Amino acid sequence: MGKNLTKRDEDYSKWYNELVVKADLAENSAVRGCMVIKPYGYAIWEKMQAELDRMFKETGHQNAYFPLFVPKSLFEAEEKNAEGFAKECAVVTHYRLQNDPDRPGKLRVDPEAKLEEELVVRPTSEAIIWSTYKGWIQSYRDLPLLINQWANVVRWEMRTRLFLRTSEFLWQEGHTAHASKSEAISEARQMQEVYATFAEEFMAMPVIKGVKSDSERFAGAEDTYTIEALMQDGKALQAGTSHFLGQNFAQAFDVKFTTKEGKQEYVWATSWGVSTRLIGGLIMTHSDDFGLVLPPKLAPIQVVIVPIYKGEEELFLLSEKINVILKSLRSKGISVKYDDRDTLRPGAKFAEYELKGVPIRIAMGNRDLENNTVEVSRRDTLKKQSISQDILIDFVAELLEEIQNNLFNNALDFRNTHITEVNSFEEFKNIIENKGGFVAAHWDGTSESEEKIKELTKATIRCIPNELKEEAGNCVFSGKTSTKRVLFAKAY
Amino acid sequence: MGKNLTKRDEDYSKWYNELVVKADLAENSAVRGCMVIKPYGYAIWEKMQAELDRMFKETGHQNAYFPLFVPKSLFEAEEKNAEGFAKECAVVTHYRLQNDPDRPGKLRVDPEAKLEEELVVRPTSEAIIWSTYKGWIQSYRDLPLLINQWANVVRWEMRTRLFLRTSEFLWQEGHTAHASKSEAISEARQMQEVYATFAEEFMAMPVIKGVKSDSERFAGAEDTYTIEALMQDGKALQAGTSHFLGQNFAQAFDVKFTTKEGKQEYVWATSWGVSTRLIGGLIMTHSDDFGLVLPPKLAPIQVVIVPIYKGEEELFLLSEKINVILKSLRSKGISVKYDDRDTLRPGAKFAEYELKGVPIRIAMGNRDLENNTVEVSRRDTLKKQSISQDILIDFVAELLEEIQNNLFNNALDFRNTHITEVNSFEEFKNIIENKGGFVAAHWDGTSESEEKIKELTKATIRCIPNELKEEAGNCVFSGKTSTKRVLFAKAY
Repeated sequence: MGKNLTKRDEDYSKWYNELVVKADLAENSAVRGCMVIKPYGYAIWEKMQAELDRMFKETGHQNAYFPLFVPKSLFEAEEKNAEGFAKECAVVTHYRLQNDPDRPGKLRVDPEAKLEEELVVRPTSEAIIWSTYKGWIQSYRDLPLLINQWANVVRWEMRTRLFLRTSEFLWQEGHTAHASKSEAISEARQMQEVYATFAEEFMAMPVIKGVKSDSERFAGAEDTYTIEALMQDGKALQAGTSHFLGQNFAQAFDVKFTTKEGKQEYVWATSWGVSTRLIGGLIMTHSDDFGLVLPPKLAPIQVVIVPIYKGEEELFLLSEKINVILKSLRSKGISVKYDDRDTLRPGAKFAEYELKGVPIRIAMGNRDLENNTVEVSRRDTLKKQSISQDILIDFVAELLEEIQNNLFNNALDFRNTHITEVNSFEEFKNIIENKGGFVAAHWDGTSESEEKIKELTKATIRCIPNELKEEAGNCVFSGKTSTKRVLFAKAY
Repeated sequence: MGKNLTKRDEDYSKWYNELVVKADLAENSAVRGCMVIKPYGYAIWEKMQAELDRMFKETGHQNAYFPLFVPKSLFEAEEKNAEGFAKECAVVTHYRLQNDPDRPGKLRVDPEAKLEEELVVRPTSEAIIWSTYKGWIQSYRDLPLLINQWANVVRWEMRTRLFLRTSEFLWQEGHTAHASKSEAISEARQMQEVYATFAEEFMAMPVIKGVKSDSERFAGAEDTYTIEALMQDGKALQAGTSHFLGQNFAQAFDVKFTTKEGKQEYVWATSWGVSTRLIGGLIMTHSDDFGLVLPPKLAPIQVVIVPIYKGEEELFLLSEKINVILKSLRSKGISVKYDDRDTLRPGAKFAEYELKGVPIRIAMGNRDLENNTVEVSRRDTLKKQSISQDILIDFVAELLEEIQNNLFNNALDFRNTHITEVNSFEEFKNIIENKGGFVAAHWDGTSESEEKIKELTKATIRCIPNELKEEAGNCVFSGKTSTKRVLFAKAY
């Protein structure tokens, strides 16, 4: 198991791919660029969904569902958005198959069943949703409209990686409508906060909140607020984005409302989303050469108990004790698995749960029965200790919290030591090339410099951080004056 | 609201369509045959999902996710299944749009971006899942494999109706793999039971469990177990199906396993699903001329409280009392909405919640404050009564149960009085034409008679009921001998 995993410092990318498959999270499918999310990977997604959904509802949002398909004429209505996604659209052109007259038992597309208008498989749903909102919004009384959708989307990708970049992925997309610009901006910023809270408190993944530069902005947005995380290999990961869409979609779909004063105005919009990509971020924030490391709050199995026994009688005696422990842990809301399979030896089980990132492993053998102890191992530090059964339940509950905090603090330390201020382009290149992480550098604010820097270093502006002190300086590339540092990095 | 609804006995179909839209459950979209599920309708689906998902997990199933697209060569591998769905498949043929040179600002399909192999948008996922299972199953140790997927599917429909028949719909599809025929049959029957329990205990919708005739069976199945419900207009609704697939998909995708004895054998399969169609069944089982009627266990809002007041001071005093009630009800796990909007009069609110089927409405006015009472109205019987505030919480909790039971019992009475035994084809036609409901009739077991009966009466065999006493008789159509009655009905 863990032994056969490529080491991170040998080949980080290979390590990642192997880990995803060996930990039973996901695999490539028969469809180019699409993945199969296996039960263990999906269970993590379910945990993420449950927390996010709760947070969305607590901030006043409701779920709904809109069609998978977008008629081409609607898709192209908001031109920038259409242009941004046109090159990666799966397009449905026919609605029927028929027997292939040349190949018995095989099918072909029925040429008679060509659609009058092609249907785009949604790469994002602004177009179909705003064409619907037109019917829902007449007056200021209909606003704000705060809706979220859990859905699959398709963006045709040439180079794919499990979770990080797949042609089909699962996500949620919030689409809200507001009576004023300031309210829409507040909403977009609120959802950036929600995402940051989720990433830090549940994923134990520290993020930097900021705003995207013009060239990195969502197609069709006025502003894109982002949360950016740092992976162990020094590359950044855009983990969630929240867009202030201005009145662009309202204008494209003619969605106006009557104000309190009786005027007709275009509606203000936001959209925001996170996807199964987060699972990739989770993996690359915490895992190690032995396999996956999961923060307890998102671990499908928080504790596994492995009995160490010879023969059925010993197993029987151990199981009696263990069943009591199981019950106590479960009554505390802790998810526990008891692995009493007789087809695997304890060592193999240990390796399996290490690979799968179960936060706490409890082993119990004959001597533990005699001594009223158990052996508790934590996945984050790989440390073991012997614990009295009398204090086990509280110990485990506290240890889960400690692991959650420890993972966050470790990731935060790593992230903080990988934000490097540079003041020359030489330094910039050196850090990007050799140390990695975020580079905090002055930038003149032009797309030209940004583009050149990307060409020369592959680093992009990840964000202009929200928390930023003004500081006079000179653009590392052009030397022109600048008032603040922005964060560059190579990114997934 | 309710007043403007077409009455059921005037035009049931029109009543249904109006109700779905006016109660804010769903609406037609810009995409032919696809619906938008609005927040209130989606909230019902979420409640259904939560219960079903719990029941699936309690019976040992795990969720996973498989690709939306099925390459044509996989889709056609199981020939009967492929033939059954070929005529209703949306097909992706291209993966890119480009600017239309003839129409500035518009897009067209990029002819250069034609897929080598077309992708079918899944109408059901047996093909993609069994092509995946080939990699997951080697030995009897890998079995059973008990997996469920929550997903959207597309079946191109020419005539669509909101929830009941839409080109895209949401559903769950279970796909299990087993080492023996008997185990697979048990699984398929178990899931039929799970569906029946869900329908009766949560939807308050009585169902008949049975097996489909050859011609009504799922394409690619050996046997289809079904639950059949009866709608208020006397038409049946197939509410859920569970299929024993034999080794058909294992053979089509070459999925074999090594038995304990070391032999190679094909794997046995089941699949089973229910969809957003259930919401249509829920509506047509309980609702009335005033609008939707929801069973408390699936109602997004179980109780609504409407204050009846003049001026802010009265509202303040009422709200003080009501906030205490809200808290008590919520602490009992009851979902309550307090509607203190000042833009609508109480009468308009009453009509709105009647239309939306909220099980219990509580009204509280000045006199109630004086008398320590509230007015409680139940949606099922439309009866009101004055209740002391001292006993309100328990009263509401019990009333919710009573409403749930009452809805089930009413539906059961209706269903039971609409199963009619007939012994001649004249009687058969008469009942189908005039009374509706299920007709229990002898049938000779041939597809020929079944087909002719359908042609002449539009009634189909809904199922051969599980609970059936053997009884000698003669087929109502052919006069040939028969050993049991089967259930016919017109169906949605």
